Amino acid sequence: MAPAAREPAEEALHEGQTTTRVRYPETDRMGIAHHTHYFTWFELGRTELMRQLGCTYGALEEESGIFFPVVQAAADFRASARYDEVVTVTTRLVRASGVRVCFTYVITREDGTVLATGRTEHASVDGRGRPQRLPGALQRRLTGQENDA
Amino acid sequence: MAPAAREPAEEALHEGQTTTRVRYPETDRMGIAHHTHYFTWFELGRTELMRQLGCTYGALEEESGIFFPVVQAAADFRASARYDEVVTVTTRLVRASGVRVCFTYVITREDGTVLATGRTEHASVDGRGRPQRLPGALQRRLTGQENDA
Amino acid sequence: MAPAAREPAEEALHEGQTTTRVRYPETDRMGIAHHTHYFTWFELGRTELMRQLGCTYGALEEESGIFFPVVQAAADFRASARYDEVVTVTTRLVRASGVRVCFTYVITREDGTVLATGRTEHASVDGRGRPQRLPGALQRRLTGQENDA
Amino acid sequence: MAPAAREPAEEALHEGQTTTRVRYPETDRMGIAHHTHYFTWFELGRTELMRQLGCTYGALEEESGIFFPVVQAAADFRASARYDEVVTVTTRLVRASGVRVCFTYVITREDGTVLATGRTEHASVDGRGRPQRLPGALQRRLTGQENDA
Repeated sequence: MAPAAREPAEEALHEGQTTTRVRYPETDRMGIAHHTHYFTWFELGRTELMRQLGCTYGALEEESGIFFPVVQAAADFRASARYDEVVTVTTRLVRASGVRVCFTYVITREDGTVLATGRTEHASVDGRGRPQRLPGALQRRLTGQENDA
Repeated sequence: MAPAAREPAEEALHEGQTTTRVRYPETDRMGIAHHTHYFTWFELGRTELMRQLGCTYGALEEESGIFFPVVQAAADFRASARYDEVVTVTTRLVRASGVRVCFTYVITREDGTVLATGRTEHASVDGRGRPQRLPGALQRRLTGQENDA
Repeated sequence: MAPAAREPAEEALHEGQTTTRVRYPETDRMGIAHHTHYFTWFELGRTELMRQLGCTYGALEEESGIFFPVVQAAADFRASARYDEVVTVTTRLVRASGVRVCFTYVITREDGTVLATGRTEHASVDGRGRPQRLPGALQRRLTGQENDA
Repeated sequence: MAPAAREPAEEALHEGQTTTRVRYPETDRMGIAHHTHYFTWFELGRTELMRQLGCTYGALEEESGIFFPVVQAAADFRASARYDEVVTVTTRLVRASGVRVCFTYVITREDGTVLATGRTEHASVDGRGRPQRLPGALQRRLTGQENDA
């Protein structure tokens, strides 16, 4: 098996970081953050990266009518996060072309230990779920070619 | 990329089905079940399969001191689940040996449409998180070789 | 303080029961179901009661354009629910008139121990959030006066 | 009915504020934050207030063996929070004596609109769930009488 989360590193178009604390209801009876919440933290990561790039999801959905549903998600879990720990999500946008947008993630605790890595792939669709090519302006912004002649 | 969820089919040691309804708080503002909840449904699936095999997680953790934390999770999302829909989780145990247990999943709606497929890989550890080989009796039960001479 | 959840019993217009198992991610590091999930279980309870009455939320929202957002919720927690326990939600519809619908709840474990009681009050609104009187036919169905002359 | 959340204002022993953004999976198909998540935000509020007072939950649980399970929770919901909105939780500690700790909450959006108010009451218990009086030093710190002669 060659899981998505361990793919050879893809080149980042953009990278950003955000932090969050492990919430009490995110812990489980093993005393650690339940693995499902890492996918929520991935979402925090790409939300903040998109905001930094000037393309909030809210605006994309409400103004451009473009949605990015997750079509594939994968994660490797290497170490545990405990209650109230601050975790950092490093998010990289690695693809934004055609009808696909992809992000990779590394989640670390404060001492730098990698807790998890992950990858999500998103379709670009309209409000009815039909594939919709990324608008040119958006694609240029996401790929960093905004100022091309 | 060769994501875990699209791997060539692994042979099932055991298979089971369980159903659940999409809960209101599991929907998001796109009006569909948020993808993070599929990982919870996978967990429902393996919980019920293990119960059918006579090895509930509760008993494993409390009586045998064995835990199966998720070390890898992946899913492909193909179609959406809407509020109050009944979804069926078909879970297959595909590996139970050494310090690894693996399951695959197919989630369908009532008309048979595949909504998602997935795979989780679990470590076998003790209460302190140290790798712990599956006890022989448990491994035999999980691999269906319980009655070997 | 006279919390909602300990009010003198209101007369039930209708009553129903549903069961659910405590899911692993619903547990917290105290090893018990986190209190926030009881409000989700209340929602399961009223969803199933409404279904029994022939008025699913899905149909109300999609066909009648009526929504019942929660305007007040309260719960008393008396005992803990553990992982994988089956809990029963007994739901009573205690009011359905004007622009208000109210339910009360009792959550028990299998031996009959009461784990929690609760109450939710809902506004009847249209798709824009404006107060909307319950349609006569719906009110008659909810109050059991469906066959009035 | 005199719900907890509308009680006459209790005097605050301590007050603190924290903010959070509405996460995508916290929205529901009405497009707004599902009411159950407000109880998680209340928890964020009291977690941060306790941290400001130098008594983190983590330390209380792990070092002092004291837990504060919720025995009563109530909320009034007045307006909706939308995806990605910043909400502020103002938390007041209103009681810390004997075996009870109580907090009240006001959740506002950035323009000052009150979205919800709430109240939680907590028991002080030991690791086995038995009532445990607040240690004197903790009670003095929580009630602000730390420097009494």
